[in-house]
Amino acid sequence: MNDYNYKFILPELRDEISLRISRLREIMVEASVDALLVSANPNLFYCSGRMFRGYVYVPIKGRPLYFVIRPNYFTPEEDLIYIRKPELIPDELAKRGFPVAKSIGLEEDELPYSDIKRLAHVFGEDVSIVNSTTILRKARMRKTPYEIAKMKEDGIHQCEVYRRITGLYTSDMTDLEFQIEIERELRKEGCLGFSRMAGNLMEINLGSVINGDNADVPAPYEFAMGGAGIDPSLPGGADGSIMHPGTTVMVDMNGSFNGYQTDMTRVWKIGEIPEIAYKAHECSRKILRVLEKIAIPGTPIADLYNRAAAIAEEEGLSDYFMGHNQKAGFIGHGVGIELNEQPAITGRSKVIVEESMTLAIEPKFVIPHVGALGIENTYVVRKDGLENITVFHEEIEDLI
Amino acid sequence: MNDYNYKFILPELRDEISLRISRLREIMVEASVDALLVSANPNLFYCSGRMFRGYVYVPIKGRPLYFVIRPNYFTPEEDLIYIRKPELIPDELAKRGFPVAKSIGLEEDELPYSDIKRLAHVFGEDVSIVNSTTILRKARMRKTPYEIAKMKEDGIHQCEVYRRITGLYTSDMTDLEFQIEIERELRKEGCLGFSRMAGNLMEINLGSVINGDNADVPAPYEFAMGGAGIDPSLPGGADGSIMHPGTTVMVDMNGSFNGYQTDMTRVWKIGEIPEIAYKAHECSRKILRVLEKIAIPGTPIADLYNRAAAIAEEEGLSDYFMGHNQKAGFIGHGVGIELNEQPAITGRSKVIVEESMTLAIEPKFVIPHVGALGIENTYVVRKDGLENITVFHEEIEDLI
Repeated sequence: MNDYNYKFILPELRDEISLRISRLREIMVEASVDALLVSANPNLFYCSGRMFRGYVYVPIKGRPLYFVIRPNYFTPEEDLIYIRKPELIPDELAKRGFPVAKSIGLEEDELPYSDIKRLAHVFGEDVSIVNSTTILRKARMRKTPYEIAKMKEDGIHQCEVYRRITGLYTSDMTDLEFQIEIERELRKEGCLGFSRMAGNLMEINLGSVINGDNADVPAPYEFAMGGAGIDPSLPGGADGSIMHPGTTVMVDMNGSFNGYQTDMTRVWKIGEIPEIAYKAHECSRKILRVLEKIAIPGTPIADLYNRAAAIAEEEGLSDYFMGHNQKAGFIGHGVGIELNEQPAITGRSKVIVEESMTLAIEPKFVIPHVGALGIENTYVVRKDGLENITVFHEEIEDLI
Repeated sequence: MNDYNYKFILPELRDEISLRISRLREIMVEASVDALLVSANPNLFYCSGRMFRGYVYVPIKGRPLYFVIRPNYFTPEEDLIYIRKPELIPDELAKRGFPVAKSIGLEEDELPYSDIKRLAHVFGEDVSIVNSTTILRKARMRKTPYEIAKMKEDGIHQCEVYRRITGLYTSDMTDLEFQIEIERELRKEGCLGFSRMAGNLMEINLGSVINGDNADVPAPYEFAMGGAGIDPSLPGGADGSIMHPGTTVMVDMNGSFNGYQTDMTRVWKIGEIPEIAYKAHECSRKILRVLEKIAIPGTPIADLYNRAAAIAEEEGLSDYFMGHNQKAGFIGHGVGIELNEQPAITGRSKVIVEESMTLAIEPKFVIPHVGALGIENTYVVRKDGLENITVFHEEIEDLI
């Protein structure tokens, strides 16, 4: 049963939303911006705890205002204003005695060019427009205790589904047939069936099941692994081939259950696979064990990438590390409301590890003609290292 | 088996892509723009027949150039240039003797503000930037015979799945459980499991199953119907309630099988429903029969909306037409690469019906405490009216 609620900000979220707004403001002060006008979906969700169509006005002082275009069913509240279009916002602010802002942050990396032009015009030429994407991403990078609790719930559900995966296999199945059964189990477990992603370039269905040779097919998207897909309009993941003995099956499927998500990968195998495949898989686990210890607050994110690459090199596995025919330039990423949040764990990152960041770390390998190997876990950064919130055994399981 | 191909433009698509480019150019001439730089995913697919990361440069004369960032596996061809970043494009154009464009079209309604700023900077201050969104949408509005053939394939697959829907129901099922089984059938039929949509506001999983009271719950998205969903982060569609006798179940599920898609809705019922529900359903069918005749090339799109609304009013059903607690302002939309293409069928549309447009028309009703009623078909505009490409009976089927 859906607990459908006429309150715009759910009562149990009032303190949580206040905490998020106060964190945003700390960064607004650093960036010297007087107000934010937020309207990209993931940021609306961050500032309100729900998805709606409209705008959140976050002044540097005073309560935020929620301008709602739709839906129309919320009980009127002091901070909730129904509007038809953003051009009505300045008058509504003036009516409520809000001071005229000298600078306003707009989400220049999320909103289309024409939306930003329109919104800038709403506030007039005397207001300077600042890119608020950086501010919002920075605030969202460190999760609140509530957000971490939501992600822990995701991890429990995702692991529960991964526990059932071996039982879904029947012999001579295609990778796609296998994926379809996993999708159904995810949905039955409460998965929302949708992956929210940053940027307008990334496209995926409910995840990636990569088997054998298909692991070595490059794809246009910036995921860790590629795959041909079943159509040139969505070239990624399972390609519809029968999964043969002597290959691995990497499962990296959706973990969105509540507006947040965990990101998690495990590997299965069919029949016997060569020694180098085990070696690559163990190398991934070794990398994770090392990073779990060194990723403490204060460590440069770049160090995590460099350490991982160095371990792969020591083991003579560089040619297969993060892909073979085409390589990904990262070993992990922030995760939360969106699947691909900041920071990207690359060798060129300037970001420093902070407490309460949530990181998906996925050191992966592609062994030609065998398949993809490696583990992905989602972690919370704690004072003394990483806490794994996708707790599930890491051995390669047999499909039988 | 996926027919994985190292040719960038598949040989069988060469003439098709030439046709699309020549249509684009007709509109570029009208708009007085010298060249387009295309990079939004649906437009890349339109200009190449595949998804990739990069840019298509379409000059007003001469062959288009394809600048590819990834994937990296295509056989080198004259028109295919690998680049790391868009800043390299002007030099590559100069090397090939392309004249310097005075005006360049960029997708201002699709690309983020910061992308447009970056691309405008690439070409320098002497080049005037034109919004190419209108040009591309106009070209894509009228489908080629190849595109129509792809959409007919979608229609056949989608109808095949709809034929199996009654058999998926078991008593005391929730709307969500029912949707999950439909999703699985869609995927087994070849559905890509992903809905490509225009705009950054629309979010959905594999579609909408709306039962009983949930039909009357407003949602933030601009779909014809709402629904509470199962989480405030994705408030639309099925809400997880058990479907009780005396209610209808509206099924509007994904029809994406090949980069194109059809959009189709049918209604099921559980037990007996009141007479007004049948009346609303028949009114929807009556509207479709009228529009199928009057939607000939030359007819204003607004006339379609107004005629539909007039028929609903004549039947005394205006209060329930296109929603009850919250109403949609359209009765249909273009469909193709994206689910929500131009034209939107509204009373304020300035668009004129043209041959080979593909329109999803969905006159729907919400009867309080019963559910949603009405039919959606996808049509091709022909000289003498609309050709239905989602051919499936329109009666309300019993779930038993």
